[in-house]
Amino acid sequence: MIRTAQDSTSGGLVEHTPLAVICGGGSLPRAVVEAVTRRGRAVAIFALKGFADPALVERHPHVWGTVTQYGSFRRFARAEGCREVVLIGSVLRPSLSQLSFDLATVSLIPRFVAALRGGDDHLLSAVARVMEEDGFRLLASHEVAPDILMPAGPLGRVQPTEDDMADIRRGLGLLAAMGPYDVGQAVVVARDYVLAVEAAEGTDLMLQRVADLRGHRRVPTRAGQGVLVKAPKPHQDRRIDLPTIGPDTVEGVARAGLAGLAVAAGSSLVAEMEALVESADRLGIFVTGWDPEQNGPDP
Amino acid sequence: MIRTAQDSTSGGLVEHTPLAVICGGGSLPRAVVEAVTRRGRAVAIFALKGFADPALVERHPHVWGTVTQYGSFRRFARAEGCREVVLIGSVLRPSLSQLSFDLATVSLIPRFVAALRGGDDHLLSAVARVMEEDGFRLLASHEVAPDILMPAGPLGRVQPTEDDMADIRRGLGLLAAMGPYDVGQAVVVARDYVLAVEAAEGTDLMLQRVADLRGHRRVPTRAGQGVLVKAPKPHQDRRIDLPTIGPDTVEGVARAGLAGLAVAAGSSLVAEMEALVESADRLGIFVTGWDPEQNGPDP
Repeated sequence: MIRTAQDSTSGGLVEHTPLAVICGGGSLPRAVVEAVTRRGRAVAIFALKGFADPALVERHPHVWGTVTQYGSFRRFARAEGCREVVLIGSVLRPSLSQLSFDLATVSLIPRFVAALRGGDDHLLSAVARVMEEDGFRLLASHEVAPDILMPAGPLGRVQPTEDDMADIRRGLGLLAAMGPYDVGQAVVVARDYVLAVEAAEGTDLMLQRVADLRGHRRVPTRAGQGVLVKAPKPHQDRRIDLPTIGPDTVEGVARAGLAGLAVAAGSSLVAEMEALVESADRLGIFVTGWDPEQNGPDP
Repeated sequence: MIRTAQDSTSGGLVEHTPLAVICGGGSLPRAVVEAVTRRGRAVAIFALKGFADPALVERHPHVWGTVTQYGSFRRFARAEGCREVVLIGSVLRPSLSQLSFDLATVSLIPRFVAALRGGDDHLLSAVARVMEEDGFRLLASHEVAPDILMPAGPLGRVQPTEDDMADIRRGLGLLAAMGPYDVGQAVVVARDYVLAVEAAEGTDLMLQRVADLRGHRRVPTRAGQGVLVKAPKPHQDRRIDLPTIGPDTVEGVARAGLAGLAVAAGSSLVAEMEALVESADRLGIFVTGWDPEQNGPDP
């Protein structure tokens, strides 16, 4: 029997329906899927080709597709009886010319094209609204897996110094100033000097750039100074695309010769917490959750 | 005879003294030196090792040095009878540990270290103040070579479209928002989407990054869309470090698959204007000087 998501008389608690997971790349999807299934809830995965990890996907009911096959997602999710959806993992913003659209998506193109003229935020918000009109409820990853939310204060044994705290405040101030322009979610600041600003390249490539600049002696601060600062954009839909860190981020921070990383507590996600803390301690990197209540407001 | 710069009774018009040129890399120093000598004024070059072009330097009275040898510069400039100084060309912000300081510079270290905690602007302003206390007058490159100043409107035959103008406005808005953080002077915007923000890496590497992202199909806009936007920082000392473009910039814009580049008219410098226009026309790239009076205020 196909129970549609719009069928509000179908009975049963929503939490007993399988969770539809639109699954991109990186280590976060595994962390979320494992946390959800540990709690006894089934998942049904719409796996994004070229991004989702087949080893994770194939353990669960799934179908492969692309971000331009919304009709295929809707059919699959309804067939599986899903009412709630999460969008997890990285997906590179695709070039339209490279994708094939299914019919349902084609009918939505005018809305998405309008949204594309803004930044990622606009596009993702448009996607969320379409799903809601189809009777799905879009949830944030941390609503279904609260243990992936970044807590306040340092993880692991290394603590930020006062200088690091000053760099964190400066980085958060810069991110807030760039907010209206829907740029990246991350900057690198070392002793008040802004070394790098993330835009389309993503955090990993930005950290690699700092490592390269240091290799070419173009970083004026010593190794062991400077902070990667990540925070959600001010108007970002927090159900989608929260800043995420994992063990790879810590390795990237170490290669860039920085002291540590700070992310907004309560609105950033941590993939593989244990492995992340182990890496941070081994490499002497601090990882801290910035809480404006505790650390004072942004400058 | 050594005539010191402080000696205001030494007679003769200041314009008849040789111009002291602190000379970094890139194509701008040659453009400025040639423009100054064409007007019949002599130059004396303090050539920065590793940056200045020996072929240019060796045609004029010169001494080689580093940015931490201010005493050496002062001695040379006074010996040559210079009263006015320009600072031209690119110098990578050095790591202090790699440099040897002369005595005069050592005495100034406390001031420079305080300035280093800010961005480049603070450091360069501190340098300018020190020179003025020693009786030199620091001039902007375009005061001695007005023909290198970017004019308003398009150079060459390609014109920006309305979409390009919208991208330029968005880029200028973002640069203004980042102003208080002393970040870079350049961004890349394509159809409202911010592809790249320049920080410590400089414009050429930022353009290379956009080219790489496009090669990896991570740029959502088509080739031929998007603009490099450069503008001075709001509080920048305009005698030093104005945004500069040259034929290389145009080549980088073409490799990045952008439509063109816009710089602030009247507060940006153009090296090798003729070669730049030739490249722009050959590659189908627009190069325009943005005049807020003419094009409306930044958003």
